[in-house]
Amino acid sequence: MNKGKGRRKPAGGAEKISKNKGSGRHRAARRPAGGPPAAGRLWLYGVHPVLAALENPNRRCRRLLLTAEAEGRLGPQLAAALDGRPAPPALERQERAALSAPLPETAVHQGLALEVEPLAQPDLHDLLDPLDSVGPAPRVIVALDQVTDPQNVGAVLRSAAAFGALAVLAPERHAAPESGALAKAASGALERIPYVLVTNLARALDRLKAAGYWCLGLASEAERSLPEAEAPARAVLVLGAEGSGLRRLTREQCDALLRLPTRPAMGQLNVSNAAAVALYELLGRAR
Amino acid sequence: MNKGKGRRKPAGGAEKISKNKGSGRHRAARRPAGGPPAAGRLWLYGVHPVLAALENPNRRCRRLLLTAEAEGRLGPQLAAALDGRPAPPALERQERAALSAPLPETAVHQGLALEVEPLAQPDLHDLLDPLDSVGPAPRVIVALDQVTDPQNVGAVLRSAAAFGALAVLAPERHAAPESGALAKAASGALERIPYVLVTNLARALDRLKAAGYWCLGLASEAERSLPEAEAPARAVLVLGAEGSGLRRLTREQCDALLRLPTRPAMGQLNVSNAAAVALYELLGRAR
Repeated sequence: MNKGKGRRKPAGGAEKISKNKGSGRHRAARRPAGGPPAAGRLWLYGVHPVLAALENPNRRCRRLLLTAEAEGRLGPQLAAALDGRPAPPALERQERAALSAPLPETAVHQGLALEVEPLAQPDLHDLLDPLDSVGPAPRVIVALDQVTDPQNVGAVLRSAAAFGALAVLAPERHAAPESGALAKAASGALERIPYVLVTNLARALDRLKAAGYWCLGLASEAERSLPEAEAPARAVLVLGAEGSGLRRLTREQCDALLRLPTRPAMGQLNVSNAAAVALYELLGRAR
Repeated sequence: MNKGKGRRKPAGGAEKISKNKGSGRHRAARRPAGGPPAAGRLWLYGVHPVLAALENPNRRCRRLLLTAEAEGRLGPQLAAALDGRPAPPALERQERAALSAPLPETAVHQGLALEVEPLAQPDLHDLLDPLDSVGPAPRVIVALDQVTDPQNVGAVLRSAAAFGALAVLAPERHAAPESGALAKAASGALERIPYVLVTNLARALDRLKAAGYWCLGLASEAERSLPEAEAPARAVLVLGAEGSGLRRLTREQCDALLRLPTRPAMGQLNVSNAAAVALYELLGRAR
């Protein structure tokens, strides 16, 4: 963990995989481990998160560590992703154990790790105008009220992207920050849909309501069930943390509270599954 | 990890939390850790899995480890669950660190761990008769084709129970076995819905088809989407592993292949979210 600490290989010093070059051309890194990310940076890992980050023009990618095995398996895909970037990351071949060193112990990295800058945080205001110009299909934004588990938030991002939601919002003080674990659970979706951390969730919902959005809160004690409700053309789907649910202030911001049609004695869905079901109802069935 | 290895406190030697007794009566265990489970047993942990196991008359519970904090927080619930059991488990108060010792490093145990026997495996044949006697509502069984991640299988069990599916099937050689991590993700559902490991999944599907079930396979390349399909009165919902999908033999067993109405360029749902969406369509919307 402490090898190579704080030192980075300059970007210009590494060769790059290219469709036009054979493999094995870039030199194997002599430092065994990637070390902790430089200040403000983070490590993404796994095939989908790393490829999606390399394909995202808004993501600054600094260092790509990969095993020979991963290079053999993913060479053409990596080459295509790297060739599309004006500033490709420094490329370093690593042994599997060394590549694992800077990552969480349980990280399933599949032979790939990418040091990146965090994504620029879009302002809700800047986000709304472009959103208003999209077509006539229903528009749905997901708001997470104090959902802090990166697995859950990642899975919500994944479903939100797959069903065509516009963004996922969360309060910056009680949310899962951008991380390798979150990106892994999102399976690339972190690069494809804005994850917007707002200072004050209630105020953000107010602004969305002023822009014509209906706030639909999912709450197990609600009288009406999701399939009974009429789907508005613009909706914010508001979900709380498991156990505690929506906070009072968030609940009061909602135009309607809806429950999922589950059997209370048999338990409830986890938050990412609840989000997937509601997104299917609001966006999937309508397509 | 190696303290108390193989030794168990006899069940008769521990006092038990009871509504009629004050707390703090049972002696604190002197052994610091629970040790690995006795042969064939496993550790469940976390509030929902442990309470659900104690409430399940078919689950043999051997030892309950808990912290003073958990006892203070959950005393009445634990007392109610324990009072309902003819053979309550031995109860041992533990320090937090000692309680963690026999559990996976990342286990969120919430101060509770329960050593149990695995559940008796129901035979599919024994399962079908009682299933046939349930009411006229749609009947859905979930079949998992080589889904091996305990988090995913646990979340599928949770959604299957919540939406009122009858059972979850998986092939015994390529499935997530019963474990603490699976039970934690299932949040109690492992005790509420049969998780049936069959020798041969294709043969099990054959038997279900002979009993009047339609096999609906979820496959991203299918032409028809889930909301376009007519829901049969008896359905087996067949889901494959992420990435590889349904195996050829399983696919050939399906009466229909259906896709979820997602945007392919934006990625797919994870398997538990896909299961939740399909269960909602087949069971939730119909209620």
